[in-house]
Amino acid sequence: MKLLYPTSAPLDIRSLQGFSVSLHPYDVKSPIPEEHVDAAILVTWSNSPDNLKDAAQRLKNLKWIQSLAAGPNDVLSAGFDTSKILVTTGVGLHDHPVAEHTLGLLLSCARRFFEMRDYQLQSKWPQHLGGSFPRSDFTTLRNARVLIWGFGSIAKTLAPYLTMLGAHVKGIARSAGARNGIEVFSEDKLAELLPETDALVMILPGSASTQNALNAERLKLLPKQSWVVNVGRGVSVDEDALVDALERQEIAGAALDVFQTEPLPASSRLWKAPNVIISPHAAGGRPEGSTELIADNLRRFLASQRLKNKI
Amino acid sequence: MKLLYPTSAPLDIRSLQGFSVSLHPYDVKSPIPEEHVDAAILVTWSNSPDNLKDAAQRLKNLKWIQSLAAGPNDVLSAGFDTSKILVTTGVGLHDHPVAEHTLGLLLSCARRFFEMRDYQLQSKWPQHLGGSFPRSDFTTLRNARVLIWGFGSIAKTLAPYLTMLGAHVKGIARSAGARNGIEVFSEDKLAELLPETDALVMILPGSASTQNALNAERLKLLPKQSWVVNVGRGVSVDEDALVDALERQEIAGAALDVFQTEPLPASSRLWKAPNVIISPHAAGGRPEGSTELIADNLRRFLASQRLKNKI
Repeated sequence: MKLLYPTSAPLDIRSLQGFSVSLHPYDVKSPIPEEHVDAAILVTWSNSPDNLKDAAQRLKNLKWIQSLAAGPNDVLSAGFDTSKILVTTGVGLHDHPVAEHTLGLLLSCARRFFEMRDYQLQSKWPQHLGGSFPRSDFTTLRNARVLIWGFGSIAKTLAPYLTMLGAHVKGIARSAGARNGIEVFSEDKLAELLPETDALVMILPGSASTQNALNAERLKLLPKQSWVVNVGRGVSVDEDALVDALERQEIAGAALDVFQTEPLPASSRLWKAPNVIISPHAAGGRPEGSTELIADNLRRFLASQRLKNKI
Repeated sequence: MKLLYPTSAPLDIRSLQGFSVSLHPYDVKSPIPEEHVDAAILVTWSNSPDNLKDAAQRLKNLKWIQSLAAGPNDVLSAGFDTSKILVTTGVGLHDHPVAEHTLGLLLSCARRFFEMRDYQLQSKWPQHLGGSFPRSDFTTLRNARVLIWGFGSIAKTLAPYLTMLGAHVKGIARSAGARNGIEVFSEDKLAELLPETDALVMILPGSASTQNALNAERLKLLPKQSWVVNVGRGVSVDEDALVDALERQEIAGAALDVFQTEPLPASSRLWKAPNVIISPHAAGGRPEGSTELIADNLRRFLASQRLKNKI
C-alpha cells in the first residue's frame, strides 16, 4: 500500500516508517506521477487546485486523504468521491502557531514595535515610546480587556496566554457558556461587550454569515483606545469602514493577518492607514505536530480503527 | 506630616488618601518648592540629578524616600543622609512590564514583524513571510531553546510565559540551582550552553563585572540561527562585536532595548545592521503597582513596621 506525502510540508519521514506502507514524496503543484496513481493514501498541504482536481480523477485506489489544513475546502471541492474516500483534517495543528502570532501582534500593538521600526529606519531614537504612557491607552496586556470573537480551538489556546499576562479575556461564539474558564457570550451581547473592549481579536471563519461581521455600526461601539486584531478570515471585516474608523481616530489601531483580497492589493487604503500593522497571512501556514498526527492516523487506518479529525 | 509624590509617575492618588499624611505633587525636574521642604516622605520617579541633589540639601525633615525604580542609584548618589533616612526601592514593579516587552521582542524576532513593516511601508506583500519556514530557524517559541542570562525577578516572571508557549528555558546566574522550576547554571557553564541556544535573553545589571559580558568570543559560541535579546543594561554587550557577528551572519539577529550610549547615537552601526530590532529603552519605565506599594509602605511607616523593599 502506498502513501503519498507532500514535499511542501515539514514532515519527519523517519517517524512514519515501520508501517506496512511505502512512503513516496510528491510535488503539490504538479500532477501525481503516473507510477503513483495506485496510491491508497494521500497527504495534502497547500496543493494547487489543478493538482487536486487531477488527483481526484486519476487516483482510483484512493481510500483516505489526510489534509494538514484545518478546513480542507480545497480537497472537498476537487471532486473526490467522499462517499468512498475517508477525509481527515489538520484541525488542531494550527492552534499554537496562530495563537502565538496573535499574541505577537497584540504585543506589537501595545508596545508599538511598528512605530519603533519607522524610527529605526531613519536612525532616530523614539524617545516618546520609552517613557510612561497614558493609563487609558492600550499599552500592556496587564488588565487589558480582550474580547475574542470566534471562540474555537485557536481561542482556547490563546486565552491562557493572555490570562497569564494579566488580561481579562471574554469570548463571543454562536453558543454561550464557560469554556476552559473563559466566559463566552453569544453574538447578541456584542453591543454590550464592544464598548468595554481594549483589544478585539477576531478569529471568525470565512462564510456567508461572517461577511463584514465587523461593520461600521459595530466599529462605532468600540472605544477610542481599542485595537482590532484579525487572524480569522478577511471577509469578516469591512475594510473600508475600518480605515474610516482609524482615520477618524474612533479606534486606536488594527493588526491584520487576513484580508478581503490576498495578497493585499497595492491600492488598498489599509497599507497607509494610521496605526495599521499588516501581516501577510502568516499566523498559520506552519502546521505543528503533522508527523505525529499522520503516524497516529496511519496506525488507526491500518488497524481499522476510527481516525482522528474525520469529517 | 507631608508626603511629596512625583507627577511623573502614573499614581492613583485617591488610593493614598485616608492616612494621617498630607499629599503634595511635585515636579521631578525642578527644585522642590520652598513651602514643601518640611516634607517627611519623598516618592521619586525619574527625577533629574539636580532635583535630587537639591532635595538632599534642603529637605531637612526627610525620614523616608520611596523610589519607584528597581535600583535607586540616583537617590543613593544624590547626597541624602541614609544613616537617618530610610530608602525603599520599586523592585518588583518592573518585572511584568519588562517581561512582557521581552516576550514581545522575542515574538518580533521569531515572526519577523520588523521585516513585515519594511514591506508595508512600500505597500508590498512579503509573500515569503507567509509560508513555512526552515525548521532550523528560530521561527517560534515552541521547542525553542531560550537561555536567560541574569536570572533575577524579571527572569522569574518571564520564564513561565516562555514555558507556556512551549520554549525550553534555562538560566545563567551567579549561583546555580533550580529556581521556580527553571534550571539555572553558573557562568562557567556558558561555553556549554551558548552553542545550544536559539534565543539568548540578557537581563544583566550594569556594573564593572558585566561590562562586555557578551563579547566576540562568546558570540562565536552561539549557533547561526540564534537571536540575542538584551533588556538588561547596554554595557553588557560589546556592540561592535555584535554588529560584526550579524554582518558575518554568525548569528541570526538581535533585539535590543538597551545600549552602551542612550539615546543610541545616529552614528551607531546598530541602526542598519542586518536583522536588528531597536527598542528605545522602553521595556520598563512604566512601574506597575506603584500606588499599592506606596500605600502599603505608608501604612507600615506610620505603624512603625518594617517597610517593604528596604535597602
